[in-house]
Amino acid sequence: MKRHLLPLSLGLLLSLPAFAATPEEDAIERRHAAFELIAFNTSVMGGMVREKAPFDQAEFKKRALNVAFLAPMLEEHFPAGSDKGGTDALPAIWENKADFDAKMKSFQNQANLLYRASKTGTLDTLKPEFGKLIDECKACHDKYKAD
Amino acid sequence: MKRHLLPLSLGLLLSLPAFAATPEEDAIERRHAAFELIAFNTSVMGGMVREKAPFDQAEFKKRALNVAFLAPMLEEHFPAGSDKGGTDALPAIWENKADFDAKMKSFQNQANLLYRASKTGTLDTLKPEFGKLIDECKACHDKYKAD
Repeated sequence: MKRHLLPLSLGLLLSLPAFAATPEEDAIERRHAAFELIAFNTSVMGGMVREKAPFDQAEFKKRALNVAFLAPMLEEHFPAGSDKGGTDALPAIWENKADFDAKMKSFQNQANLLYRASKTGTLDTLKPEFGKLIDECKACHDKYKAD
Repeated sequence: MKRHLLPLSLGLLLSLPAFAATPEEDAIERRHAAFELIAFNTSVMGGMVREKAPFDQAEFKKRALNVAFLAPMLEEHFPAGSDKGGTDALPAIWENKADFDAKMKSFQNQANLLYRASKTGTLDTLKPEFGKLIDECKACHDKYKAD
């Protein structure tokens, strides 16, 4: 098993991003990655909610679970100092960190509630739960995201 | 609840990436996002395995669970035609799609095994399981990733 521990193979994995970055740049990249996947999975549910795509409960549940799992991956990637560079995160985040953290928790909580509802829900029962998730997104974006 | 269904608020969410992209570009961006988070969570375990950081079982387990959850998020983002543009994915993927898919499943399986092992494991028992995960990464990268 010794060969498994060679720095080389781990180095290969860790070299996935092609450039060396500061911890703040890494954090920005990682939270963008989590947001990207959250937005994608949410958009699949959104298509059903807006009746642009047929309702598929198993698919909806899968997307809700993905979002519930991805949501808590965001919070560790907002270290102080990561408001500079390629980010829309406003300095207000770090000036109101307790409020920001509470909004993150509230978003996570609603993602869990949506997943729970999706296990037995119909499109009609899921629409308002999905709407509340979007409200959670918006509450944070309005206050803490540029544009 | 009607206001929850406004296209506007959903549009806001879906507009997270600042540019309109082709489905292939979207796929590339989404798989990069999943790889980014997989690499990050793996690197935290890797630090413990290489004894650069103290072993913390709860932390290791959290990272293993994240990877187990993220691993299946990759496969839907390799549509035909997404070998062009800002990607290291080689055309060989689509020439050997069944083999590529099997390697993806094998990676997912090992991520699950590592998570299962992490529930009760010690650093000594987790090292070889982690090594097998890195081997799964490498098996796919060697054949299907440029550089």
